Amino acid sequence: MISRFKRFLIGRPMKSAELEGEKLSKLKALAVLSSDALSSVAYGTEQILLVLMAAGFAAVWYSIPISIAVLGLLLILILSYRQTIFAYPKGGGAYIVAKHNLGLSTGLLAGGSLLVDYILTVAVSSSAGTDAITSAFPSLHDHRVLIALIMILFLTVMNLRGIGESASILAIPVYLFVIAIFILIISGVIKILTVGVHAHVPEIGTAVSNISLFLLLKAFSSGCSALTGVEAVSNAIPNFKKPSERNAARTLIMMGTILGAMFIGISLLAYWYGIKPDPKETVVSQIADATFGRGILYYIIQGITALILFLAANTAYSAFPLLAYMLAKDKFMPHAFMVRGDRLGFSNGIIFLGVFSALLVVLFHGDTENLIPLYAVGVFIPFTLSQLGMMIRWLKLKPSGWVMGFIVNSIGMLTTLIITLIFIFTKFNQIWMVFIFLPIVILGFYKIKQHYENTANELRVNIKLDKPVAKGSTIVVPVAGVTRVVMQSLSYAMSLTDNVVAVYVGFDDEGIAHMEKKWEEWNPGVRLIILRSSYRSIIRPLVRFIETVEWKNAETDHITVLIPQFITKHWWQNILHNQSSLLLRAYLFNQKDVVIATVPYHLHR
Amino acid sequence: MISRFKRFLIGRPMKSAELEGEKLSKLKALAVLSSDALSSVAYGTEQILLVLMAAGFAAVWYSIPISIAVLGLLLILILSYRQTIFAYPKGGGAYIVAKHNLGLSTGLLAGGSLLVDYILTVAVSSSAGTDAITSAFPSLHDHRVLIALIMILFLTVMNLRGIGESASILAIPVYLFVIAIFILIISGVIKILTVGVHAHVPEIGTAVSNISLFLLLKAFSSGCSALTGVEAVSNAIPNFKKPSERNAARTLIMMGTILGAMFIGISLLAYWYGIKPDPKETVVSQIADATFGRGILYYIIQGITALILFLAANTAYSAFPLLAYMLAKDKFMPHAFMVRGDRLGFSNGIIFLGVFSALLVVLFHGDTENLIPLYAVGVFIPFTLSQLGMMIRWLKLKPSGWVMGFIVNSIGMLTTLIITLIFIFTKFNQIWMVFIFLPIVILGFYKIKQHYENTANELRVNIKLDKPVAKGSTIVVPVAGVTRVVMQSLSYAMSLTDNVVAVYVGFDDEGIAHMEKKWEEWNPGVRLIILRSSYRSIIRPLVRFIETVEWKNAETDHITVLIPQFITKHWWQNILHNQSSLLLRAYLFNQKDVVIATVPYHLHR
Repeated sequence: MISRFKRFLIGRPMKSAELEGEKLSKLKALAVLSSDALSSVAYGTEQILLVLMAAGFAAVWYSIPISIAVLGLLLILILSYRQTIFAYPKGGGAYIVAKHNLGLSTGLLAGGSLLVDYILTVAVSSSAGTDAITSAFPSLHDHRVLIALIMILFLTVMNLRGIGESASILAIPVYLFVIAIFILIISGVIKILTVGVHAHVPEIGTAVSNISLFLLLKAFSSGCSALTGVEAVSNAIPNFKKPSERNAARTLIMMGTILGAMFIGISLLAYWYGIKPDPKETVVSQIADATFGRGILYYIIQGITALILFLAANTAYSAFPLLAYMLAKDKFMPHAFMVRGDRLGFSNGIIFLGVFSALLVVLFHGDTENLIPLYAVGVFIPFTLSQLGMMIRWLKLKPSGWVMGFIVNSIGMLTTLIITLIFIFTKFNQIWMVFIFLPIVILGFYKIKQHYENTANELRVNIKLDKPVAKGSTIVVPVAGVTRVVMQSLSYAMSLTDNVVAVYVGFDDEGIAHMEKKWEEWNPGVRLIILRSSYRSIIRPLVRFIETVEWKNAETDHITVLIPQFITKHWWQNILHNQSSLLLRAYLFNQKDVVIATVPYHLHR
Repeated sequence: MISRFKRFLIGRPMKSAELEGEKLSKLKALAVLSSDALSSVAYGTEQILLVLMAAGFAAVWYSIPISIAVLGLLLILILSYRQTIFAYPKGGGAYIVAKHNLGLSTGLLAGGSLLVDYILTVAVSSSAGTDAITSAFPSLHDHRVLIALIMILFLTVMNLRGIGESASILAIPVYLFVIAIFILIISGVIKILTVGVHAHVPEIGTAVSNISLFLLLKAFSSGCSALTGVEAVSNAIPNFKKPSERNAARTLIMMGTILGAMFIGISLLAYWYGIKPDPKETVVSQIADATFGRGILYYIIQGITALILFLAANTAYSAFPLLAYMLAKDKFMPHAFMVRGDRLGFSNGIIFLGVFSALLVVLFHGDTENLIPLYAVGVFIPFTLSQLGMMIRWLKLKPSGWVMGFIVNSIGMLTTLIITLIFIFTKFNQIWMVFIFLPIVILGFYKIKQHYENTANELRVNIKLDKPVAKGSTIVVPVAGVTRVVMQSLSYAMSLTDNVVAVYVGFDDEGIAHMEKKWEEWNPGVRLIILRSSYRSIIRPLVRFIETVEWKNAETDHITVLIPQFITKHWWQNILHNQSSLLLRAYLFNQKDVVIATVPYHLHR
């Protein structure tokens, strides 16, 4: 039943050989991998304006130079990551690059912050997508968290079905989003050219009395949230069709160009319209409203924006499980993250991501403004480390033309380092959690590695000396009466050894006498040992019995406890049986060195 | 760890023989068993007023004759139940009396409605207790559900500790409540005598234009909610100290007298003060406020009222597990309800009650007004059936003086039957659920009974003919490499039989070749069978392997699959291991007729 439901939800299982067919063409890759970056347009400008408004409406003109600075940063990042793609064609995530060039600890720092960040990507994108919806339908404002959670659930299920299929679904909305935003920008520009700029917009260059460098830096770092997601391409090179590096590099540049154009366009429109950020309506919603009015075009733009934001979360669904797989392969995360599911995705990684991002949405009440700083700082730490790693790599390998490459990465590293520092300096009260959480994650990595290594050492056999040896064996069969179940269990035990002991736990003299008499009549060829319990517990006397040795043939005997378990025909019948067996098994197994053999008894009715 | 936490919460285990020491004296019994009945005073009058207000404030004087009618009904019930106590000294719950005299189906109807009702008792009492708190502290009004849930959790834990100890805790607040309410009534009467009655109270006998018989009947049935809980004593006779019948009967009469006096007192005060029901402040709170003002005495009265209401729920915690035990002994409920826990209470019944009442509180948002009608009708069905049963009993046995007894029970039966009909007639829109839910519960009883009987038939052995017989046996050991775990598993398997097969599931040629070579070098004396999987699943190939028969010695062989399981030193290490074993065990066990032997491997680090 459950298995059939899973089939319906997830689809039929796929062979490992089908993996190649799941690889991405450039255009598909643009859709799957850039939705995170492109969708940042939906909140990037708003984050800048939110900060500037602290100095009054007169300060909003600063959004234009700040947006241009963010654009410059985007250029640097794209050039820098382009180099990473060619240097690490097997997937140069920050974890790989940092581990390779800067040592393990730095790699783990990068890996840890990326893992945390992918979770935040899902939380931020689903919350921002919800904002787009509730801007259009204010009555839904109170159901924000629920809407975001439904979207996370939907994404999780879609990803358990496999990347290939989701890419086909994803391609359309990403293209639609790009088209929609360009239509919005062009229509907005035409409208402004014909109707004119908003009367009260402060001119660029207006003196603002209470603006400070701190505020400007804060606004700039807020604007950098528009750049989250650009690293996705370089992490996912093996998912590209061959030649994968070249295709990945082109996809990266396409993405950068589109992102830059959309971001500066939205910033300019916001400035010309004189838009103020509003907790109940996003900036993009206000621009669309001002351009088209609340007509059909407005709702299409809001709908597509919501869609792309929800799908942006999907970038994390491709990246997180892959990174978790790499960490698990290096034994820093549980083996479970290495298992590909029926549909070739890393199911455990996908489920883990879904659960934790849902948790974040609930904890932050789906509040984008507080999630984004965490998200951005989590991105810029691995940005910096990854480029520092590339710098070291140029210095070590010194291939032809290395100086240019080194300079590009150095500029990139310094810029992202400065932005990280600006984050810490201007937004410490919003991001301090990261600096508590990251060390815990990294400590966890080391603990897991150590445990796996200890285990491997413990389990290693000397292939010459260590051989399995047969020993004596005794089987204990707890019985509650004379039934077919007992008969079946005894048959099974007698097939394996002659040392079979039946044990009955009695609570009163009457019951014990009755059992003794019945056993004698039946005479199954197995001796019955009676234990008396004054605590109504059958577990305690049994454990004590197993601890005593008198009844065993040799102290070194293997001891097996046979526990019958009913396999019922209908699921609800299960609650009518097996409670004691479950308890007994759980207790004995964890406490004692005995083998528990569960003997199924299939009930027919 | 968990075990130690349980000890701390629940207390040390107790011997069965300690059961007698847990029995109740009359005064203690009054506390444990009558808190439900006495606490009804906190909402009974309010329920009458709520209905009357539909006809305007002028109608409130009807609350006085209605209260007197309820008082009359209380007298009838007490006399009637007193007879039940002597007729069924082993505990004459409605289930027993109805089953014994009216047949099984009627008994189950009574038992089922009582079970549902005990759950409602907990939900209503904890919600009403919360009302008392939020009347005193209106700012807590929004946290009603949370407060009620905390109290349910507290009660559940307390009851898992055992009745004796909770009785000692419970005795004090019940006495305090009785004292507090009497002080309130006396002070109120004195105040009214000195200051005079509220100016605008409609005089008794005032003509009310829009009053209808329907409304009066509805108000009367609402007032009957004050009588819920009077049956508790007759269900719990075996819990009394000897002579238990006499002690139980005296407790019942004490309880009836106190309840009647408090109920009529509150009704009179409410009338004299001219109190109108208010969703944010209870009637008792308004009376206390009018009598003492919001001083220390007011808060004491509210606090004690809340306390007694929370503890009223405790009546259900004594009664529900006992009734569930009786039903489970007759095989109408799962065996699990027959198991006494470490502290002699029926733990499963207690937990079940806690969970379901918490669910009700959440579903009804802790809304007393909607819960009470359900509760009351659930009480009056078994009231009626129990007394009908007593009537039949008098007619059958005809002991000396049976005519008087028959008359008392007949009057009781007719009165409660009429009230049940009034409920159905006047409040059908609030109580229809009961008539859907009850048949389902009763159907469930029969289904469970049938299943247990089928199982017993299936399991019965012919003691002369059916004997256990040894057969051939084959042990399958899935291996993932050459490790100590494999060595241990093979040693174990070789101790039991010569037919041991190691099975390796490989995903690629490289891994398979490596494994074959290593196995050959090791040469453990067990043949290795290699299975190839193109689906990355180890379960599917293994299942198919077990289905094929070529490798078995005989088709009738017992098949055992050995599954090693790591016992880790620290709980968190568990998530690093055992995932595949768990899946394999769950799948094989439910699908196939194989024995699963779990071999523990204790990790040392």
